[in-house]
Amino acid sequence: MTPVIAVDAMGGDRAPAVVVDGVVQAAGRLDIEIALVGRRADLEAELARHGHARLDRIRLIDAGDVVAMHEAPLAALRRKPHASIRVAAELVRTRAASALFSAGHSGATVLAAHGALGMIAGIDRPALAVIYPTHQGAALLLDAGASLECRPDHLVQFARMGTTYARVAMEIERPRVGLLSIGEEAGKGTGLIRDTHARLAETSLNFIGNLEARDLFTGRADVVVCDGFTGNIALKVGEGLVDAVGRMLADELGAAVTSQIGARLTRHAFERFRQRVDYAEYGAAPLLGLAGLALVGHGRSSARAIENGIAMAAQLAADRMVERVSADFCAA
Amino acid sequence: MTPVIAVDAMGGDRAPAVVVDGVVQAAGRLDIEIALVGRRADLEAELARHGHARLDRIRLIDAGDVVAMHEAPLAALRRKPHASIRVAAELVRTRAASALFSAGHSGATVLAAHGALGMIAGIDRPALAVIYPTHQGAALLLDAGASLECRPDHLVQFARMGTTYARVAMEIERPRVGLLSIGEEAGKGTGLIRDTHARLAETSLNFIGNLEARDLFTGRADVVVCDGFTGNIALKVGEGLVDAVGRMLADELGAAVTSQIGARLTRHAFERFRQRVDYAEYGAAPLLGLAGLALVGHGRSSARAIENGIAMAAQLAADRMVERVSADFCAA
Repeated sequence: MTPVIAVDAMGGDRAPAVVVDGVVQAAGRLDIEIALVGRRADLEAELARHGHARLDRIRLIDAGDVVAMHEAPLAALRRKPHASIRVAAELVRTRAASALFSAGHSGATVLAAHGALGMIAGIDRPALAVIYPTHQGAALLLDAGASLECRPDHLVQFARMGTTYARVAMEIERPRVGLLSIGEEAGKGTGLIRDTHARLAETSLNFIGNLEARDLFTGRADVVVCDGFTGNIALKVGEGLVDAVGRMLADELGAAVTSQIGARLTRHAFERFRQRVDYAEYGAAPLLGLAGLALVGHGRSSARAIENGIAMAAQLAADRMVERVSADFCAA
Repeated sequence: MTPVIAVDAMGGDRAPAVVVDGVVQAAGRLDIEIALVGRRADLEAELARHGHARLDRIRLIDAGDVVAMHEAPLAALRRKPHASIRVAAELVRTRAASALFSAGHSGATVLAAHGALGMIAGIDRPALAVIYPTHQGAALLLDAGASLECRPDHLVQFARMGTTYARVAMEIERPRVGLLSIGEEAGKGTGLIRDTHARLAETSLNFIGNLEARDLFTGRADVVVCDGFTGNIALKVGEGLVDAVGRMLADELGAAVTSQIGARLTRHAFERFRQRVDYAEYGAAPLLGLAGLALVGHGRSSARAIENGIAMAAQLAADRMVERVSADFCAA
């Protein structure tokens, strides 16, 4: 049976144009169907731009409202029952779709998906699980912003979900789990960190202890656990610094004549490097812990990132990721 | 009267050798005296390496104990009354020195300095105030790790101290204060952030609202306020990424023949860039809020960074920074 991915066409900084571009590319490449959710007139205009390509695989689902990036998500969702993200989440709840993808308001996506799908038994809060590049390959960070304030229980659940995810999606047999803190010693950090450290040490997980933030990119840990506030800040510092590196390096390269030659020669190298680091290019991140598949894309997603995000949603559906996480929690 | 800077000679990854190198350089450059605190025999050996240069300006203060980087600071300080950091802090308390500088265990420095010097009236907790580079110059982040768990009161105090510091030390007339969070909207963030946002909006400070972590390096805010856990993570992500950038860029540059030429040409440019970003090069950061001057250097400090840190301590003493912060709190 061909999997159906529900895509919130109205979400993202350049929606719906870039989303539709990515959807058409994904429909051309993958053996999937796409339920494209948004304002019908807007979407028909965008699809016309593509000469109505791949309409055998793209189905329009009309949803008249949008949660804008500046809106408070809870109030907006209450006020807008026909918001595209709610309609998309409903398609997953009713099993009309296998997974949901949105590059829109991530807070609204978390609330809408949580409301429609509920949680896996034994898991209290969803965690956004972001794969990011390290010097040795890739690592997983969770939570990247779904659950801002956490108790030790929640972080232990994140560690377990992250371990399952890394095993299945990243094919790491026994993922090393690190707890993000301000020093490696067990005593370093807030009360939350110290309590969580003690709890993790008692599990059967491959817990390697606290991980300092400067080791995020060295690949010391495969799964990095933190609350959603800290994780969001950590990833966005990385993003901001990559942008700043580009600009500052350009300044420095312009400073000397010999370096100007270097600037031209290295431009392509820097672009490849940026693609390795910029997680907007990676596609999407799943909201682990929900009793259904929901993936969040970056607001600045390019058409290629949207395409990758949809591909990732299809892969996680094929991997039966929700069932795998659920089984690992029942077994524990 | 020549200011006296008390330097913890035993603190830092390569202490006492690198510290003594930096002290000798600082003593040669600046019109200051240095009280060099540590194990007498070790320090005499190090000074002999320099041909006993600048002994007119360097005075040895014997302190037989050291708090090692892996020790729990509170217990270690209780057990070691003659720890170099305690003896150095005592020199500031008794006014034998104008300021204290240590590149050692920062938790121990915070505790020893807090214990010896106490707080300025009206300020509850110390904040490590780190100046870091942005694309538009420099900005100040506090707290970078002195006070890990904070209430809104504390963050408002940090905003006020940071404003005074930016005005005096960075010569910014009306510093723009940003509250580090996961989104710019007032409602975005934890309960701590939302409450602090409301409190800051009522002050006469130049509060520009929440600052997203990816704007840390754009220069949108002059003073970035956060709890010490978040601030430490944010700065260390930056540090780690700069290291990773160096290694990944070298990989990418090696990938093509034309790029290899670029690699040689841009090596110097990258080194200049790294110096702009790496705050180990900046020297030191003061613990604002204490009723005496104490500066924390980076554990990885080079001799040049130690020299810069001592110069910064002398400058803040000349600026009467503690009195300026104190006066701004009395006036409010």
